[in-house]
Amino acid sequence: MLRTHTCGVLSIKHLGKTVMLAGWVQRLRKMGGMTFIDLRDRYGMTQLVFNQEINAELCERANHLGREFVLQITGEVAERSNKNKNLPTGDIEIIVSDLKILNESAVPPFTIEDDTDGGDDIRMQYRYLDLRRSAVRANLELRHKMAFETRRYLDTTGFLEVETPVLIKSTPEGARDFVVPSRMNQGQFYALPQSPQTFKQLLMVSGFDRYFQIVKCFRDEDLRADRQPEFTQIDCEMSFVEQEDILQTFEGLTKHLFKTVKNIDLDNFPRMTFEDAMKYYGSDKPDTRFEMKFVELMDVLKGYGFAVFDSAQYIGGICARGAADYTRKQLDALTDFVKRPQIGAKGLVYARIEDDGSVKSSVDKFYSQDILQNLKEKFNAEKGDLILIISGENINKARKQLSELRLEMGNQLGLRDKTKYSCLWVVDFPLLEWDDETNRYYAMHHPFTSPKPEDIVLLDTNPKEVRANAYDMVINGVEVGGGSIRIHNSGLQKKMFEILGFTSEQAEYKFGFLLNAFKYGAPPHGGIAYGLDRFVSLFAGLDSIRDCIAFPKNNQGRDVMIDAPSIIDNEQLDELALKVDLKN
Amino acid sequence: MLRTHTCGVLSIKHLGKTVMLAGWVQRLRKMGGMTFIDLRDRYGMTQLVFNQEINAELCERANHLGREFVLQITGEVAERSNKNKNLPTGDIEIIVSDLKILNESAVPPFTIEDDTDGGDDIRMQYRYLDLRRSAVRANLELRHKMAFETRRYLDTTGFLEVETPVLIKSTPEGARDFVVPSRMNQGQFYALPQSPQTFKQLLMVSGFDRYFQIVKCFRDEDLRADRQPEFTQIDCEMSFVEQEDILQTFEGLTKHLFKTVKNIDLDNFPRMTFEDAMKYYGSDKPDTRFEMKFVELMDVLKGYGFAVFDSAQYIGGICARGAADYTRKQLDALTDFVKRPQIGAKGLVYARIEDDGSVKSSVDKFYSQDILQNLKEKFNAEKGDLILIISGENINKARKQLSELRLEMGNQLGLRDKTKYSCLWVVDFPLLEWDDETNRYYAMHHPFTSPKPEDIVLLDTNPKEVRANAYDMVINGVEVGGGSIRIHNSGLQKKMFEILGFTSEQAEYKFGFLLNAFKYGAPPHGGIAYGLDRFVSLFAGLDSIRDCIAFPKNNQGRDVMIDAPSIIDNEQLDELALKVDLKN
Repeated sequence: MLRTHTCGVLSIKHLGKTVMLAGWVQRLRKMGGMTFIDLRDRYGMTQLVFNQEINAELCERANHLGREFVLQITGEVAERSNKNKNLPTGDIEIIVSDLKILNESAVPPFTIEDDTDGGDDIRMQYRYLDLRRSAVRANLELRHKMAFETRRYLDTTGFLEVETPVLIKSTPEGARDFVVPSRMNQGQFYALPQSPQTFKQLLMVSGFDRYFQIVKCFRDEDLRADRQPEFTQIDCEMSFVEQEDILQTFEGLTKHLFKTVKNIDLDNFPRMTFEDAMKYYGSDKPDTRFEMKFVELMDVLKGYGFAVFDSAQYIGGICARGAADYTRKQLDALTDFVKRPQIGAKGLVYARIEDDGSVKSSVDKFYSQDILQNLKEKFNAEKGDLILIISGENINKARKQLSELRLEMGNQLGLRDKTKYSCLWVVDFPLLEWDDETNRYYAMHHPFTSPKPEDIVLLDTNPKEVRANAYDMVINGVEVGGGSIRIHNSGLQKKMFEILGFTSEQAEYKFGFLLNAFKYGAPPHGGIAYGLDRFVSLFAGLDSIRDCIAFPKNNQGRDVMIDAPSIIDNEQLDELALKVDLKN
Repeated sequence: MLRTHTCGVLSIKHLGKTVMLAGWVQRLRKMGGMTFIDLRDRYGMTQLVFNQEINAELCERANHLGREFVLQITGEVAERSNKNKNLPTGDIEIIVSDLKILNESAVPPFTIEDDTDGGDDIRMQYRYLDLRRSAVRANLELRHKMAFETRRYLDTTGFLEVETPVLIKSTPEGARDFVVPSRMNQGQFYALPQSPQTFKQLLMVSGFDRYFQIVKCFRDEDLRADRQPEFTQIDCEMSFVEQEDILQTFEGLTKHLFKTVKNIDLDNFPRMTFEDAMKYYGSDKPDTRFEMKFVELMDVLKGYGFAVFDSAQYIGGICARGAADYTRKQLDALTDFVKRPQIGAKGLVYARIEDDGSVKSSVDKFYSQDILQNLKEKFNAEKGDLILIISGENINKARKQLSELRLEMGNQLGLRDKTKYSCLWVVDFPLLEWDDETNRYYAMHHPFTSPKPEDIVLLDTNPKEVRANAYDMVINGVEVGGGSIRIHNSGLQKKMFEILGFTSEQAEYKFGFLLNAFKYGAPPHGGIAYGLDRFVSLFAGLDSIRDCIAFPKNNQGRDVMIDAPSIIDNEQLDELALKVDLKN
């Protein structure tokens, strides 16, 4: 080893010891006849001292070092006169007796500091330098730890990690599949998996009983702000289980991660039906760090001559505790917020609870104080509270708007503390979603999701009322995982395909090998998949998944550091029997 | 859970207990008024009993069950009269009181037994049934355990698992790259990594210090018998190390795996130079489970009128202890073996040590007994031994032929015991290989491999004598891992590119972002990569890697179960701006 210790471990107990360290020059300061260098590695930072009077030549060499030079030094551990309480090694410094420059460095295009002066673009281009910043490295250390503890928990509970193939078959509906031309089978393509769904179900047919995999998945879609073309899932499946078994097992995994990684003991996760989630939070992934539940107000506010409410199919509101002192300007800003095209509300009605208990609203002329007092009671509102009301002609849209408003109020009132975690299961999702455009049902989760046994009778009469044995794990308003119990009965599967409008030929073409496997004794099974990138970013308290990924792509799907994707040789295209045919 | 216990855990201590089991029907036997079913799951097999006299209806239902039906049963644990010592549950059976058929099964196309009646092709097509066989499942359980213990060891020793991207940049020399057309960047392609080499080196530049990853890699090449287009590496890199540190660390990993997985304590691994490996074994991956080292015989046998030897540039032999009783037929078969086109020797000379100590050879007419006694001494041969000699005009080719013969003799004499493990490091590989066809040097390992410091002076004068800081871990004649110390000095790297015949433009185009990164303070670093598939197959005692992979491809690169690769829609090609252009 080119070192005896790392830059993070030396302390007062090493005083007088001769040590060898290696690392990067973080900063260099000259004071009087002394030169101080902070030497950095993955493990920390240690102060080096060079003394002009003791060794002028060595000090002179030190004075010529630049930022990010790579050094190997030998020296003696000494007590600092000026201790740094913020640094684990802050009690000591190294009186350097020998210095070797292992490598020089050009001046980096931005400072290697937690608060860097580099913008997003330049940091992505020089990602290998960005990764030197301890804030970014800490995210990847966290990621390692979460992945490792996930494996440890699952190994202990009898799960086997099985690698499923990356080069698989493209499916006709796989419009978002990345494809891979085969040189050995010209004109034919593999596809990269959007998830290992079918393979994990095959492993259940194979009797693997408990499977998991931390695995890369791929989706060639227009990238929303926080998506990546390649992403990582914690993918799991179990046999001979019912929904409750899966919830228990993976609630256990999540508790294990919070305990081992963050030393947080979580309570049991509450369960919320999809119906309640929509009714009280307007979202299937409610942020339950704060209450501020929706109150429905059709019975209170409709029919009093306020045209907007009178024509509404939905009137609902939230009560922001203690926000009655919102100024006119703040309320106008909130109105502008909900009227933005991304949210699309027509307007916002508010009602303040005054100090005397009376209610002052923006629609006073339509409502008597009696009715406003009714309103107040509905929310159990008290003096100082602010009620905010949204209405609309489409219930789901209006709920979504109110949900956005609720989250914004949570932000404004400081109720969304990133160091606080509120976990729950959302259960009883609808099995099917009707799509007006294509005039057919779609599987809300996927076509293998099992309906609740007691709802199977509704499949013929009222499909949209059928609930699925499907569940999402939601933490702080983020869906970190989701899954379902699968259909293992071929008759039920056939009916499901009929409802989804597949002919048996289409079903055979799309899912042939899985349906074939199901003929040979498929056990009852179900599973879950977590998005690891998002899970880590939640633990890291980050808004974006990007800084939890070592080498992320930008939102054009490009890796600007390596400049990928890029054109390839004609020879290579020839070997693949392909021609590029750009339309414009 | 649909069970209280698995099919592998019940024993005499559960007598009288009412249990619920779930699993597959392995076999069904009727005897007298009794029906016996072996119920199988991942964990084992349990015998179920149905008694005609006690519950005729239940017994009748059991009689109609078929192989691979999925059952859930309730019953009482009872002691068997006829115990099965080979089965962990062999002391007990379950007197079934309730039976539920969870799923039926068609008759499988082959028997689900360790000794199945299914051929390779049908088992690959129905891989999900093949995976039910406990022999195949055991390989994947082993794979899980090896991967998990690898992670545990590396986590404990301070390595971070960092995921590197799968969608990367195609390089002009990457003729064996799989490419992935980008829909969002039409006409441009990603490539799938043949290894994460450049990324792990970038992580060292980033100061990650100790990196590992168990990662899929891809190579679109004509598949030899035991290659797969996608394969898994244990990929590792360390900073501030010298070769010895890497050997120690990864010898430690290998010992940890043998201990935790197979409970074998390994001795320290001997080191063998590449030169010695070639000289004594004719291979850079010698199988050292048995001696039978090469003895060079130019000084003993050349110049006595035997034209074949007299014109040879190499004469060498091995001594097969106790094989003097090989018959003429066996010796002819050995001669045929070495003369096969895959080996290509011109012939084989043998010499037997007779009971009286005299030597009887196939070329007696050219050599006196005195010379043959010299020969005998060279090998320390004794009565009953058989000396086998090969010669040739090309030293390397002749050594390779003799190596094949040595391995074959090892097989024939039972010296290659699959339960015995002989590990070593092969070190001091040449840095460069000369290629007569293209008239240039190639990097034997890769262009970033560091020469030995003491050999750097030879780079200008005698490049082919330069040894690299490169090393392979060899176990039982299998190269399970290999790596090198990398060049971190840009001047040396530049010289290396010159020797390899790259202009600086070419070097820039091919390795630009890595060379750029190296300008900002690259630490000394090096690493290793293990082939996980081969490592597991070695532990499993298998000849092929295929049965250590859940869903392998055949040697046309096809997955016959899912029928991939396959053609894709024209619409999808249009979206990718591609046309298929088959020449024939």
